[in-house]
Amino acid sequence: MSQIIKPKSISGFPEWLPAERYIELKWFDTIREIFESYGFCSIETPSVEALEVLTAKGEVDKEIYVIERLHKEDGEKEARLALHFDQTVPMARYVAQNFNELKFPFKRYQMQRVWRGERPQAGRFREFYQCDIDVINVDNLPLYFDAECPAIMVEILQKLDIGSFKMQLNNRKILAGFCQALGIDDFVPVTRIVDKLEKIGADNVKKQLLTELSLSDAQANQILSFASIKSSDDGFAKAVRDLGVSHPTLDEGIDELVFVINTLNNLVKGNFEVDMSIVRGLDYYTGTVYETRFTDAPSYGSICSGGRYEDLAGNYINKKLPGVGISIGFSRLFDYIRAQGKLPKGRQSPADMLIVLFDESQRLWAIDLAKQLRNGEFLAAGRKMNVEIYHSATKLKKQLSYASEKGIPYVVFPPADPGGMPELKFMDDPDRAQEALTKLTGF
Amino acid sequence: MSQIIKPKSISGFPEWLPAERYIELKWFDTIREIFESYGFCSIETPSVEALEVLTAKGEVDKEIYVIERLHKEDGEKEARLALHFDQTVPMARYVAQNFNELKFPFKRYQMQRVWRGERPQAGRFREFYQCDIDVINVDNLPLYFDAECPAIMVEILQKLDIGSFKMQLNNRKILAGFCQALGIDDFVPVTRIVDKLEKIGADNVKKQLLTELSLSDAQANQILSFASIKSSDDGFAKAVRDLGVSHPTLDEGIDELVFVINTLNNLVKGNFEVDMSIVRGLDYYTGTVYETRFTDAPSYGSICSGGRYEDLAGNYINKKLPGVGISIGFSRLFDYIRAQGKLPKGRQSPADMLIVLFDESQRLWAIDLAKQLRNGEFLAAGRKMNVEIYHSATKLKKQLSYASEKGIPYVVFPPADPGGMPELKFMDDPDRAQEALTKLTGF
Repeated sequence: MSQIIKPKSISGFPEWLPAERYIELKWFDTIREIFESYGFCSIETPSVEALEVLTAKGEVDKEIYVIERLHKEDGEKEARLALHFDQTVPMARYVAQNFNELKFPFKRYQMQRVWRGERPQAGRFREFYQCDIDVINVDNLPLYFDAECPAIMVEILQKLDIGSFKMQLNNRKILAGFCQALGIDDFVPVTRIVDKLEKIGADNVKKQLLTELSLSDAQANQILSFASIKSSDDGFAKAVRDLGVSHPTLDEGIDELVFVINTLNNLVKGNFEVDMSIVRGLDYYTGTVYETRFTDAPSYGSICSGGRYEDLAGNYINKKLPGVGISIGFSRLFDYIRAQGKLPKGRQSPADMLIVLFDESQRLWAIDLAKQLRNGEFLAAGRKMNVEIYHSATKLKKQLSYASEKGIPYVVFPPADPGGMPELKFMDDPDRAQEALTKLTGF
Repeated sequence: MSQIIKPKSISGFPEWLPAERYIELKWFDTIREIFESYGFCSIETPSVEALEVLTAKGEVDKEIYVIERLHKEDGEKEARLALHFDQTVPMARYVAQNFNELKFPFKRYQMQRVWRGERPQAGRFREFYQCDIDVINVDNLPLYFDAECPAIMVEILQKLDIGSFKMQLNNRKILAGFCQALGIDDFVPVTRIVDKLEKIGADNVKKQLLTELSLSDAQANQILSFASIKSSDDGFAKAVRDLGVSHPTLDEGIDELVFVINTLNNLVKGNFEVDMSIVRGLDYYTGTVYETRFTDAPSYGSICSGGRYEDLAGNYINKKLPGVGISIGFSRLFDYIRAQGKLPKGRQSPADMLIVLFDESQRLWAIDLAKQLRNGEFLAAGRKMNVEIYHSATKLKKQLSYASEKGIPYVVFPPADPGGMPELKFMDDPDRAQEALTKLTGF
């Protein structure tokens, strides 16, 4: 025998046991079903892009993995390729490249793995799934989509039953206009500091505004008052205006966010909060921004974020392509619920039924029955069943324990007399009773 | 504006337009549905493994991609990681690593991307999907699975409607025993040469058997007669025995293959052929082997291959784990049908219906109707619809052409009088008529 290599997981590259994967797949199905129910189409891009595409925006703060052929010959020239670190950059390249083939507004979803070579820790992986939706249009994009996108994500998070969470909204124009009204021309450094409010607290934010940006005490106080404004409806508008500053960009941002929060509250109930401290550190957002946190674990960070950008693909094409998008950090969300022990109980087989064999002579009968059950020809309303046939006519106890250990809810016994009806036995696992019954009866 | 980068695809890394992806996704759904209907569970492994895991079997004939952090610091020690080139090696590591958590026989499916740095050409990609099933057991694995696995794959290929194809079967013990009976002790070099029969022809195979392996003319002729035997049932057994050689391993192989082809013919009709020239070049197959070819394009190579192996995970664990597995080369299969123009017409939106707006005041009504349609509360039998609302109350012609261009089959018009019934118009695209009607009515 050759040398034994100890099989182990690689830090930051998660993989799940079959019963966990069973639930992960159900989550993906739910997400996809809801994305599609709003008419978003699926695309996938390759896992790799030319390195120059990934670094086109200049400085990249994500740790990129490059790939290289192990047996590359010396001096062999090949384009440098790297694994994508998000789905936005590849989508921008895709939209520019296929501009003439796509119909706009282009509404797409993308559920793929992305890679970042960051130091792994709880909730931060090196390989993970993201589930993104974006809407892209040419020249102008209706503000309606700034509400539809987060509404879809909240519908999904509600359906996944992840516990209490809050999606926080803001509009970067509000802070930009507010700063300009205060005489602060460049608001980006202000967003970087305000972004840390939750983490370092109001006192430290004020200190940094004073020392790092040389703001006056009055300016810093105004910004802190501003950043503390929250509301679950359009009440934030009055609170901001009550601070007594005025600017066209501020007004524009307020009007947009009022429209978005009111439309949102029509689309899906609950879970939203306008929060003036949410600014997203990323420079490319220009309007509405979103972040989502667990109510009881805000420090875990955002599990669903995004925003509006004025120009998606300016690096690749001479068209103005504004968009709005939002992304679920799928793996970190799933892993959080998993680590808390709050995942529903999965199972190691998707089979609904196991046909047991008393005697090898029953195999042909079993094959035929399994075919009918799989094709929906046996049960009412064409319900299709996933069916395993036990592989040998061994002791019944062994066959039943196989069903039990794999979580297969029903066992089918061959008829006592040839031509008789098979008998159906429910394995009586309360955790799976409802799921099994619904599949069998439709109720 | 920053510098324009011309967006382009990377050779060997396929990506599809939305309408093609629409069909690709349906294919994945079909494959998964059939895998699960036989009780195979899903697993996924990370895209990367430790390099030592991928090269554990010694010489690797696949071109491996290693990955490395772009900003790795000089002298930083990290385990060498590489993208997996198939799903069998990662599964072996997974099974060994999680041995105590898994129930055996372990039946799993895996549908992931794999990477090989080979020179791209028609049907050969550097990044592609494979769809694998394997059954692994401890110590012994019933021969029944040697028939169930290829039956599942043929059921899938029939359902995908890929045109005429043939799955060819053999058992490596037959050739091994046959060679031993002829006094050829090492049959592996013989398999390597016989494997080329289709490509180089009988004369060249004979020449290589004579010159490279120094076989006698009689031996070479016997092997060529043997390799030309084919049958769609167990008739091959008599043909082999009629060659007048005998050996226990030969008999064992014939008995196994007779059982497999007879069981297969009970499980799913047609598309199978026993072919003594099919030997699979890979050393690790020890019994039944499978290859699948298009009838009208055999030279495109195999689109679905596999076989039985005696010991899956000997590199990682001190247990004997025999298995049988088979894999669809998904991307090469899909690309072949796509390139032939034989894919069904896909569409750029999964929406079944577009609600148009005559007036912005109808939006709340539309939002409410869309919600009911998506939840299955509007149509009979709880049928759920995918519904888009047009984003603005612009000219009707523009809204209708959006539905038409994205392939959305139905348009919903707001009622003429408030409280009236909305009107449903079918966009009358014959290519989509049946699909749309089935979804709407259930028939």
